[in-house]
Amino acid sequence: MASQDAGGEDELIQTTFAPLASGFAGALGLKDDCAFLTPPPGEDLVLTTDAVAEGVHFFADDAPGDIAWKALAVNVSDLTAKGARPVAYLMSLSFPERPARAWLDGFAAGLADAQAAFGIALAGGDTDRRPGPLSVTVTAIGSVMQGRMIRRATAQAGDALFVSGTVGDSALGLLLRQDAERTAEMGLDEAGARHLLGRYLRPAPRLALVPPLLSFASAAMDISDGLVKDCGRLARASGLGAEIDARRLPLSEPAQAVLRTRPALIETIFTGGDDYEVLAAVAANQAADFRHASAAHGVPVTEIGRLVPGEGVSVTGPDGTALAVRGSGWDHFPA
Amino acid sequence: MASQDAGGEDELIQTTFAPLASGFAGALGLKDDCAFLTPPPGEDLVLTTDAVAEGVHFFADDAPGDIAWKALAVNVSDLTAKGARPVAYLMSLSFPERPARAWLDGFAAGLADAQAAFGIALAGGDTDRRPGPLSVTVTAIGSVMQGRMIRRATAQAGDALFVSGTVGDSALGLLLRQDAERTAEMGLDEAGARHLLGRYLRPAPRLALVPPLLSFASAAMDISDGLVKDCGRLARASGLGAEIDARRLPLSEPAQAVLRTRPALIETIFTGGDDYEVLAAVAANQAADFRHASAAHGVPVTEIGRLVPGEGVSVTGPDGTALAVRGSGWDHFPA
Repeated sequence: MASQDAGGEDELIQTTFAPLASGFAGALGLKDDCAFLTPPPGEDLVLTTDAVAEGVHFFADDAPGDIAWKALAVNVSDLTAKGARPVAYLMSLSFPERPARAWLDGFAAGLADAQAAFGIALAGGDTDRRPGPLSVTVTAIGSVMQGRMIRRATAQAGDALFVSGTVGDSALGLLLRQDAERTAEMGLDEAGARHLLGRYLRPAPRLALVPPLLSFASAAMDISDGLVKDCGRLARASGLGAEIDARRLPLSEPAQAVLRTRPALIETIFTGGDDYEVLAAVAANQAADFRHASAAHGVPVTEIGRLVPGEGVSVTGPDGTALAVRGSGWDHFPA
Repeated sequence: MASQDAGGEDELIQTTFAPLASGFAGALGLKDDCAFLTPPPGEDLVLTTDAVAEGVHFFADDAPGDIAWKALAVNVSDLTAKGARPVAYLMSLSFPERPARAWLDGFAAGLADAQAAFGIALAGGDTDRRPGPLSVTVTAIGSVMQGRMIRRATAQAGDALFVSGTVGDSALGLLLRQDAERTAEMGLDEAGARHLLGRYLRPAPRLALVPPLLSFASAAMDISDGLVKDCGRLARASGLGAEIDARRLPLSEPAQAVLRTRPALIETIFTGGDDYEVLAAVAANQAADFRHASAAHGVPVTEIGRLVPGEGVSVTGPDGTALAVRGSGWDHFPA
């Protein structure tokens, strides 16, 4: 018996994904069962894994390039907040049926864009077919000087709480993605709607913030499940509570326009997910230095509150009184 | 507003999975967004990812401990065949609904068993809820002396082809898992059926074979998608063809009993998946040394054929003539 065996799965990997691994020698062209990685001397590797699935993290009819970008971005965002430089990733894909060539090409193009933007290469993967939603599971590997990974649990009482960029854009973008007709009723023009939607579809990890974080952050994490929830996680991990002042929240112009028309959406801004900004704790006497260093690296950061003894997250609302926030953020398994 | 936020997802991770990470300091008790790994000096890391899903790789009513074992075993098997020592793994779980406590406890117990057997620890993970089959995606990290990862593409014409253990047990075990009533018609007694089923449910990566592989293998990979298909992959990657002699195939006692009753199942043995044995190419003049070293490490290996100039896999059947094998192995995307 002679086996030809240029089988579908192997061919899919070679035509679509092998080009994405060409920048990483240890990937061996995706022709082996494993990749190898020679670790940079004196560095720790930083490891994270996150999956995105159709119907949960993206829509079935999202552009395949956007799905690919987001799958990689949410992982690189984790690395960035830990002070790590992206190195390589592995990707496990499951499709309910054989994807169309055009879809695959778009997906690969989105990965190529994201790889170039984040400085990361494909090291290996796995592809299978199963019923259920299309899903993309990425494991990303970064690198940081030994012992220097920035943690969640090391914030101190009195530290200032910073966020990068602006918050809430992505959660508002999701509302528009669900129903584009909402543009006018949310008080947005087309450009504003496009901005918010872009923040939802193609989140941009804050790679440029890594040097200031390594210099100044006592603790950090990325904001993926909502500002209030993730502030609570950082504070709790450090055995502390947090106070946030809603009046200091950095909001994009379009988000401000939405709030003028629909003030109640402040809750969406606080608790919606998918920000992929960095939340950082910085000693109060270094707050100004952190702000300046971040600006010098091209990333605005804003002090939104502080860490305090105790527990829980308290939010001061726009009118200066305590704000009741019903949901605290996204949870896949609500208690 | 005060957020309590001992949310379901965080609690699931802390109660069920954090104990599995206690042996790995860089996992930080699964309380951070990333893990860190200080690479062993002078070593390369070896990376692989493989997913298992309900209805594709396991049955919905398989014992949760078996599902967990298999998810980890299939990844460790890849590391082992590359000559790597297991170090750590990340796991991404997706559930269609919140799993029952008893299911989770069984799953965690299976992981604990597998971790102890394979010498690997949980470094991090991700859990979400989505429609579709329960799936478990593992990324495993191993370690090998720098530059020493055993590849697929480096076999030489004339090399002997070896397999470890016995082949086909798992494919026959799957037939029994699909229908336990088949025991008698397959010519098996209860003990034989139990053996084959065990090989399907709890495959055992050949960790003990790592030293002989590092000493003697010119190329190697694990057999996961069927012997003929994976022989073809190793040969093709090396720019060669392969010849296999079915009469030399190492078969367990129960598999031999099956073949006496149902000779046609030789095809299932050749092309069924899930063997998780090692396929290794060894220079002909080192074949005896490899066999002795492997035996000394407690793993029988059998020379089943050789690598030859050309392409494709030719199989000599039990009667000494060429064997026609219809399917070449498992493919998620048949062309």
